[in-house]
Amino acid sequence: MELTQEQILFYKENGFLLLENVFNAEEVQVLLNEMDEVIKEDGPRRILEKNGSVRSFFAPHFSSEIFDKTNGLDRLVVPSKQLIGDDVYVHQSKINVKAAMLGDWWEWHQDYPYWKNDDGMPKPDVLTAMIFMNETNEFNGPLLLIPGSHRNGEFDDQANDIEADPNDSEWYAEYLKSASFMTSLTANLKYKRERKTIADWVAKKGIYSAKGAAGSVLFFHGNVFHASSNNLSPWDRFTYLVTYNSVRNKLANIPEPRPEFIAIRKFDAIKPITGTLCPTGRENSVALTGV
Amino acid sequence: MELTQEQILFYKENGFLLLENVFNAEEVQVLLNEMDEVIKEDGPRRILEKNGSVRSFFAPHFSSEIFDKTNGLDRLVVPSKQLIGDDVYVHQSKINVKAAMLGDWWEWHQDYPYWKNDDGMPKPDVLTAMIFMNETNEFNGPLLLIPGSHRNGEFDDQANDIEADPNDSEWYAEYLKSASFMTSLTANLKYKRERKTIADWVAKKGIYSAKGAAGSVLFFHGNVFHASSNNLSPWDRFTYLVTYNSVRNKLANIPEPRPEFIAIRKFDAIKPITGTLCPTGRENSVALTGV
Repeated sequence: MELTQEQILFYKENGFLLLENVFNAEEVQVLLNEMDEVIKEDGPRRILEKNGSVRSFFAPHFSSEIFDKTNGLDRLVVPSKQLIGDDVYVHQSKINVKAAMLGDWWEWHQDYPYWKNDDGMPKPDVLTAMIFMNETNEFNGPLLLIPGSHRNGEFDDQANDIEADPNDSEWYAEYLKSASFMTSLTANLKYKRERKTIADWVAKKGIYSAKGAAGSVLFFHGNVFHASSNNLSPWDRFTYLVTYNSVRNKLANIPEPRPEFIAIRKFDAIKPITGTLCPTGRENSVALTGV
Repeated sequence: MELTQEQILFYKENGFLLLENVFNAEEVQVLLNEMDEVIKEDGPRRILEKNGSVRSFFAPHFSSEIFDKTNGLDRLVVPSKQLIGDDVYVHQSKINVKAAMLGDWWEWHQDYPYWKNDDGMPKPDVLTAMIFMNETNEFNGPLLLIPGSHRNGEFDDQANDIEADPNDSEWYAEYLKSASFMTSLTANLKYKRERKTIADWVAKKGIYSAKGAAGSVLFFHGNVFHASSNNLSPWDRFTYLVTYNSVRNKLANIPEPRPEFIAIRKFDAIKPITGTLCPTGRENSVALTGV
């Protein structure tokens, strides 16, 4: 269940690591069925797309034993501990829906700056494990990452000038409003700088597209730049994301903290559990395979 | 310069045909430079993205000798005549910008129903030649097409119920407003039927992604379903599109026709010209290569 040194080095170099066959087909179906139930619940945890479909659902493990159990599985927790180099707890969990022909895009961003600015997280010793609940291909909006971008720290302009809400894609449109292509880019220094920064990084390192079968898990660093296109295909791209933070990286006490369903403030180390999500109770016997 | 029978059969089967090396690097640069100038002109021919950048520019050949010459090049006209099986004239021309990190998506659609309903075009004996002015890859919003979908005729619901403007991506958002994922899809029969139709076709034939080097040309049928994602990459994806219509498929006289820059009403057959766009006057010596 432990990652190899080679896998750990790959993550440290690139800021992400894709493992295949972490969940078997039966377990994936359990998660899909559970998701169908969970996201029916209206309320502040459910975020909608502009078109009215579900975009995200925060903290499904608050109301679902299956998602709660998933968070603690050694298959996720042990690699996270190795990659972070410490015991971990769950900072956030989220279903991202990106449904067939309905799912919208996510702008380029780093996650950690929001957790730093909005939640008082001291350091970027944090990662997210993204479980693929469907096959992800070039057509259904795979996560795009810029390899190595996590090693540049937080992008300075990330949260300045505008109210940037990572759960609201509208902010990007607002952000770009003054950037009329080829005529007034100079009017928006902030945008120009970010665009140039991302272009420079991509010129050096390219873009990695996280494609893979259902049951794969992508671990990615809190500071790696990532984005995804909208899903024009008739293939859903459901994912479950669990963010693990170092227990030595507890959130500071801040005025008006965000709700627990976005930023959890229970900092006890998770004890990884072995087991399976299969209703038959069979142990998961699938071997982790390489990058 | 003529297409082979194999290429013609491929087009008839699939509804598109990609040719590489139709324009050489010097000619592509001529088109890029000309585009930079042309799209500066404000006015009704220029369509903006929601973010204020340029999305499209109609009929650049009205104000540009270079684009006008391009429309008549035998490299475009001769294949178009072969694929349509008749002499042709230019029904529409357009620059689609899809700029790096700014270009928005295009919903799944057929082109011909708009030309039929809005312009009085009797039959789908029409195709578009799309010139790639940049390398197009999986990251900068390649045109996606459903092979063979042109053989199903016009999708019945295409232009019913809502005001569908192909130059306005807002319509799709409006279109989907009542389609709340997994709860109220049944409330929108029209959407459900279209989504199911596209899903059925894709299940049978997959999705073709029109990737290729700058200078490639994609010919695609007026009834083939196509779409493209937004461009999250730092790589522009500029294209120039020329729509060739059969001279026996003239637009009917209709009340309130759309402006000439969207639907041209000069129906004389184009006489294809040999030549090059290179300022040095060198003849283009690049051979057409296969699909």
